[in-house]
Amino acid sequence: MGTVLAGATICGSSGSFRADLRMDGETIDAVGFGLARPGDDVVDLEGRLLFPGGVDVHTHFDLPLATMSSADDFASGTAAALVGGTTTVVDYATAFRGESPSRGIEAWHERARGRAFCDYGFHLALTEWSEAVSAELADVVSGGISSFKLYMAYKGSLQVDDGTLYRAARRIGELGGLLCVHCENGDLVAERAADLVASGLTGPEGHGRSRPPLVEIEAVRRMIAIAELAGCPLYVVHVSTAGAMEAIVAARRAGQSLFAETCPQYLLLDESRYEKGGIEGAAFVLSPPLRPVGNGPLLWGHLARGDIDVVATDHCSFTLAQKAVGLDDFRLIPNGLPGVEHRLSLLYSEGVVRGRLSAERFVESCCTAPARLFGLYPRKGLLAPGSDGDVVVFDPRQEWTIRASKQRQKVDSTPYEGLDVRGRVESVYLRGRQVVEGGSLLDGTPQGLYLRRRPFPK
Amino acid sequence: MGTVLAGATICGSSGSFRADLRMDGETIDAVGFGLARPGDDVVDLEGRLLFPGGVDVHTHFDLPLATMSSADDFASGTAAALVGGTTTVVDYATAFRGESPSRGIEAWHERARGRAFCDYGFHLALTEWSEAVSAELADVVSGGISSFKLYMAYKGSLQVDDGTLYRAARRIGELGGLLCVHCENGDLVAERAADLVASGLTGPEGHGRSRPPLVEIEAVRRMIAIAELAGCPLYVVHVSTAGAMEAIVAARRAGQSLFAETCPQYLLLDESRYEKGGIEGAAFVLSPPLRPVGNGPLLWGHLARGDIDVVATDHCSFTLAQKAVGLDDFRLIPNGLPGVEHRLSLLYSEGVVRGRLSAERFVESCCTAPARLFGLYPRKGLLAPGSDGDVVVFDPRQEWTIRASKQRQKVDSTPYEGLDVRGRVESVYLRGRQVVEGGSLLDGTPQGLYLRRRPFPK
Amino acid sequence: MGTVLAGATICGSSGSFRADLRMDGETIDAVGFGLARPGDDVVDLEGRLLFPGGVDVHTHFDLPLATMSSADDFASGTAAALVGGTTTVVDYATAFRGESPSRGIEAWHERARGRAFCDYGFHLALTEWSEAVSAELADVVSGGISSFKLYMAYKGSLQVDDGTLYRAARRIGELGGLLCVHCENGDLVAERAADLVASGLTGPEGHGRSRPPLVEIEAVRRMIAIAELAGCPLYVVHVSTAGAMEAIVAARRAGQSLFAETCPQYLLLDESRYEKGGIEGAAFVLSPPLRPVGNGPLLWGHLARGDIDVVATDHCSFTLAQKAVGLDDFRLIPNGLPGVEHRLSLLYSEGVVRGRLSAERFVESCCTAPARLFGLYPRKGLLAPGSDGDVVVFDPRQEWTIRASKQRQKVDSTPYEGLDVRGRVESVYLRGRQVVEGGSLLDGTPQGLYLRRRPFPK
Amino acid sequence: MGTVLAGATICGSSGSFRADLRMDGETIDAVGFGLARPGDDVVDLEGRLLFPGGVDVHTHFDLPLATMSSADDFASGTAAALVGGTTTVVDYATAFRGESPSRGIEAWHERARGRAFCDYGFHLALTEWSEAVSAELADVVSGGISSFKLYMAYKGSLQVDDGTLYRAARRIGELGGLLCVHCENGDLVAERAADLVASGLTGPEGHGRSRPPLVEIEAVRRMIAIAELAGCPLYVVHVSTAGAMEAIVAARRAGQSLFAETCPQYLLLDESRYEKGGIEGAAFVLSPPLRPVGNGPLLWGHLARGDIDVVATDHCSFTLAQKAVGLDDFRLIPNGLPGVEHRLSLLYSEGVVRGRLSAERFVESCCTAPARLFGLYPRKGLLAPGSDGDVVVFDPRQEWTIRASKQRQKVDSTPYEGLDVRGRVESVYLRGRQVVEGGSLLDGTPQGLYLRRRPFPK
Repeated sequence: MGTVLAGATICGSSGSFRADLRMDGETIDAVGFGLARPGDDVVDLEGRLLFPGGVDVHTHFDLPLATMSSADDFASGTAAALVGGTTTVVDYATAFRGESPSRGIEAWHERARGRAFCDYGFHLALTEWSEAVSAELADVVSGGISSFKLYMAYKGSLQVDDGTLYRAARRIGELGGLLCVHCENGDLVAERAADLVASGLTGPEGHGRSRPPLVEIEAVRRMIAIAELAGCPLYVVHVSTAGAMEAIVAARRAGQSLFAETCPQYLLLDESRYEKGGIEGAAFVLSPPLRPVGNGPLLWGHLARGDIDVVATDHCSFTLAQKAVGLDDFRLIPNGLPGVEHRLSLLYSEGVVRGRLSAERFVESCCTAPARLFGLYPRKGLLAPGSDGDVVVFDPRQEWTIRASKQRQKVDSTPYEGLDVRGRVESVYLRGRQVVEGGSLLDGTPQGLYLRRRPFPK
Repeated sequence: MGTVLAGATICGSSGSFRADLRMDGETIDAVGFGLARPGDDVVDLEGRLLFPGGVDVHTHFDLPLATMSSADDFASGTAAALVGGTTTVVDYATAFRGESPSRGIEAWHERARGRAFCDYGFHLALTEWSEAVSAELADVVSGGISSFKLYMAYKGSLQVDDGTLYRAARRIGELGGLLCVHCENGDLVAERAADLVASGLTGPEGHGRSRPPLVEIEAVRRMIAIAELAGCPLYVVHVSTAGAMEAIVAARRAGQSLFAETCPQYLLLDESRYEKGGIEGAAFVLSPPLRPVGNGPLLWGHLARGDIDVVATDHCSFTLAQKAVGLDDFRLIPNGLPGVEHRLSLLYSEGVVRGRLSAERFVESCCTAPARLFGLYPRKGLLAPGSDGDVVVFDPRQEWTIRASKQRQKVDSTPYEGLDVRGRVESVYLRGRQVVEGGSLLDGTPQGLYLRRRPFPK
Repeated sequence: MGTVLAGATICGSSGSFRADLRMDGETIDAVGFGLARPGDDVVDLEGRLLFPGGVDVHTHFDLPLATMSSADDFASGTAAALVGGTTTVVDYATAFRGESPSRGIEAWHERARGRAFCDYGFHLALTEWSEAVSAELADVVSGGISSFKLYMAYKGSLQVDDGTLYRAARRIGELGGLLCVHCENGDLVAERAADLVASGLTGPEGHGRSRPPLVEIEAVRRMIAIAELAGCPLYVVHVSTAGAMEAIVAARRAGQSLFAETCPQYLLLDESRYEKGGIEGAAFVLSPPLRPVGNGPLLWGHLARGDIDVVATDHCSFTLAQKAVGLDDFRLIPNGLPGVEHRLSLLYSEGVVRGRLSAERFVESCCTAPARLFGLYPRKGLLAPGSDGDVVVFDPRQEWTIRASKQRQKVDSTPYEGLDVRGRVESVYLRGRQVVEGGSLLDGTPQGLYLRRRPFPK
Repeated sequence: MGTVLAGATICGSSGSFRADLRMDGETIDAVGFGLARPGDDVVDLEGRLLFPGGVDVHTHFDLPLATMSSADDFASGTAAALVGGTTTVVDYATAFRGESPSRGIEAWHERARGRAFCDYGFHLALTEWSEAVSAELADVVSGGISSFKLYMAYKGSLQVDDGTLYRAARRIGELGGLLCVHCENGDLVAERAADLVASGLTGPEGHGRSRPPLVEIEAVRRMIAIAELAGCPLYVVHVSTAGAMEAIVAARRAGQSLFAETCPQYLLLDESRYEKGGIEGAAFVLSPPLRPVGNGPLLWGHLARGDIDVVATDHCSFTLAQKAVGLDDFRLIPNGLPGVEHRLSLLYSEGVVRGRLSAERFVESCCTAPARLFGLYPRKGLLAPGSDGDVVVFDPRQEWTIRASKQRQKVDSTPYEGLDVRGRVESVYLRGRQVVEGGSLLDGTPQGLYLRRRPFPK
């Protein structure tokens, strides 16, 4: 009747212990010894680790740009998530200019409905502000979308001005929402990029130069001030620089309600990737860009200390053919990398195995904290009685190599091509039911549920 | 056969959830639903919280001074600990000048053996250094005492010089020990105290003035430098000032292996207590002394953020008659306050109930972190299968008032006299066996075990 | 033939000494003993101090707003400057939207020509950016205007966006100019002011609340980043908050070419002035606004240490009748205070006499540094052979009281009404010729020269 | 009758200007144009710079150690000073253990009397404390010695404990003295040095390893705390690390009366000098030791910003034969380098010419600030009417090379052997009389006066 995962080590954000875990129906029933009841399916997992199902709160599946959509849709993206041990994603539904919030959300429901292999929720990204937008947000929050995103970059499309940031932050704070912001100064990026192109530097190496660290650091500082004045909790997405982290750390110490996310690419890669130019460089174009050597270790330190709360992926994949449209002008390269599939393995192998991150901080940043901040805890992010039976069975001894040719992500490259990894997701349970075995989906039918999320705790 | 604590909320350092907890023999067997087996004793605890048994790593029971001993011995001290929800204490065994480490430890075993109501371990305090001492320490560590203490204060008795601090730190680091240090500049204290007495200020108010914050801050900075140079992990006991915490925070951010403890008295009381003078002031004489108004809130902030790892008590109690010997010269007042009995209640009521501390940080700082740092985790400090069945059943709705007349601590005063408290320890289990019920010990026979502790993890 | 000022103490930015000073023609000829030559006019100034003529680099004389002009024009403003010991002003010529730089400058020449009693130069304030503006600036610099101003506040009129700030900074840096910026986030001001008015708070007390310290601090941080990225030296005008100074100090320590100005009103007054409301409050409306009690002492500290380079006045005076137009909506109150007349007396009396400022820092911040930063040194700001004979004879023993009824400034109020002052400008020499005696102009004919200023030293 | 130095540029700590300078008798009479009177000696110095005579406040001439004295005595040391442009030295008279202050001072007078070529004063270094010492200091201060030195290093000889530091600081503060401290933790040095020698590392490279930066940083922090508690102004001699400067900067910003000195060797040399070992390494043994590459540039930054007030030399020279006594045990190498002769040239050439230091900061740190801090200003350190006629005529165009074989310092090496230098002292005037011409003394008769110094200004 139930399932008993026996003999593994249960890993949580405050420590590990050896015990069995029993699921009954969709939830965890007990953690301990001698739990098996007659009829239970008992799985021997000696030597494995059990993690709570991963929670990736920054994905862009099927994201429509002006001339294309991102390569992974909800089917391929959530399937890749699942084989990589991520059982919940929160994707950025977007109300583009001229669209109401409800229209934007409905468009995303249409994209996801019936296609998702893992559970999913939505943030709502806004691109303009009005009384009508403001009025509608109360229903959005009560309907289960309690986090919002605004962009300080992408001048002319997604970027909003400081007045909008302030007004939105006041309203979102009032409604118990959490404000997520892409912090780069889009005005400076536009000027610098224009200068670079005018000077003949049109290749992908210009991308990084157009957005140096100060472009992010300035925007982070500014947004911290705006959120403080507006009284709104702030979540800075994809922090890429140690300098931005210093501003965040200082404001948190002063008592501000403030959270930081980074992504594996900022921990593991650096700007030297742009030097190859051409399609090889274009493949690494994302915003914020990859940073100088030396920045990554500082971010690892911030992650280890808990200054960085969450590791998400900002998964927004494009094929090399898609990337190629901007080979003559880096401003036209679609921004984004794949990543939802490899997050847990990368963080475990490069973090825990290499001693940069404790197992506790690994679980906290990849599973528990994102669930907590985005209104899904303790249903998600925790291996405890009453929580959903989302369990990752992880074999820390397996060694393997990341290859685009073997990934589930529907693109023809990965930023980690050829990287040797230690530790692998062996099987995955979603709400009590095994869905992955030996790296493969067990069932071609999408089983992901849409998750209504609670407001941000005061 | 087993005992099932049913219907309560289980509180851990990373979150809470409602589930039952089953103990079998001396350990926890399972956490979940439907755990009761035939013959089990099922206790209905609807509405209660379950905490891991408290761990107080800073006590001085039966401490011999020149002319007296501290008032609580191992019998009364550990009984008071137990009724207050503390199931483990680590006391400072001391090798006084002329005594070998083994002699000091044996003396403490003699004090504790057969008298302790809760489980207990020892640190070893050293007051001088020699090749012989150094040589003996390897056996001390392998025998289960892995933490050591040195004093930068108490000139002429316990104080050691910087050369000794350095030499001891090198050796302790080598052995996998953790170095605990009382950080106040004893030279400055002696000079300032002599000046104050010479100027006629002989009452207890002189005590605080002789040891202003900089006296501690200086010593903390110095000790951080010495530990860094010696390559030894450092645990600063009873940090009392925000200024010292700033130095600690900075060094931790730079990667040093460094930990901080504070005590309830520094969080809750301030130096105005000395102004009454006489025996009323003398009752509050301890070192470091109580601090200016405004310092406490800063310490709460450091505790909430995790800069302070541990709340211990520095329990070192004296009767008012004992305190009275220094009424004409504050330098003669025995230093110390009672506290082991009220730590959990104070931190819950003044911390969690007042919103200064999350329930998670409360459990972490009072139970989990001290067990982890001092080599007792996961046996102590955790409610998980396999851990000792040390469980505090806490009723968060009870309201009561602290009174010396009703305490178990064997002294005639408490620094918190008359304080109204919310939340109370209702019953306590020690290694699976209920030992406290309704605030009273169930059994007059001491059941405490001596605990060998593991070295500090590299 | 020459004039010998004999027997006084000569005060400079690096110290004072007793000596005579001889002027011959328009310049200083010698400093020493026994300088008098046959025919010289020897003035006995025993007991007096000699300062270099004051340099006020932030005035707005005859500033045209939409419906009025500021009350003091170049005649009354420079006359007031002179009696107060300021022999040089640098006023903000402004190219309003639609005006070319040369048109803006010419308009200011028209305002000043033949009316100025003291020497004067211009900065150029820009309100928009284009290739044409950019091209014209080379001539502006070579013509003697080497500093420029941009506004981050005053949305809809003077405010420019970050792209313009960056582009202008790059060009100005290239040309050897110094960029002066009014740092307040105008978007946030507009939103907050609208909210306050909407909530019924329409009186002058709303002015301060609409622009809290973070509104300035944010803008200062942002502008520092933009100037750094653009490679342009930055001069932050009228810094009003200690928080902004912290950002400036940090960037200077990191090597950025960055300078700070404050004004007497931020050192001496606080936001309690707004509480009276009505015309009494309106009289104190300026931007940035007056700040909380406690901020002023921190600014004095920054000035004393040299973190603040310059004390200027931001003199922009309005009569109470002019101020009254905004009594029903604080957004309509013309922004600004008088001040050019009292700067030296205020800084000497409240600074040097009260021990907040050394005499050296007084001379440095009021005379020497502004001359140096704005391309007038050593002609101005220094009492040395070869410099202009601009000398303030100051009697440190005189005591008097500031009264609007007795001031030269052409307005019916002063922010310092009734303030008792110690030390007074007794007489003033402009280019070797005495122009003030006993607080009065000696000659009704304006003698001020227009000053071409050198570029900013690399 | 007088002497007119005509046509040069007069350089002061707040700027430079072209003018003539006239001396009459021992003092400066006037600065300006057309100063020559009948009978004056007019010297044409077109193209030269005039600096105030250098003031070196840290020398050890004829310093007696246990088995030798430092190589330069007052005759050779002050002659070297003079040809290098230093017209005033303040040497550390020392009261060794068992000697009274007056005995120590008298011993130094005996060493200097009739032998000094430049003017000189004394600090008093104390090596122990008692009521008798304390009582005697009032006379010492009123007798013209207003600065004192204590050592935190040199365990067993010069080092005093924290109680002595505190007690002395209180007394010195009371008397209007300035406390100079050698900040290194001598306990840690002794332990580390013993470990290194025990491990077989006996060569000069062990010297640096025995005193890493934290050994200084710790002591600086500690001494800052002690001076703050005692209420005494503090002057930290020979600061060698950027880390120590950070502590000093922070305390100054908090308002403490605190000053910093560095020496050319810390600006220009680094620890790689020890790597050669043997006599080549021994030649560079001094305390604090030379520091890692990268430290020097940070010190230049602190000097340029004014965080470091004074550049002195800590001149304490030994011949290579003297250095050789410690070749088998670095602890026996006499500590110290020569330097008094080359300070101005080094700072001008490596500082001003290379753009690390403005000419103003050069004059301030080498001439004006030391005179001001040590009670000699404006008599020394300033080129103004009334000051002593101590003038350095400096030719900024000359290029030359430092060679031990050509130096006046009475030792057979210089740390700057072979360094090419730009700018040279051409002639020197001491109290109105030319004493150096073309790098040579004009007169073999010592003319130096003993200088009584004023107390430290409150």
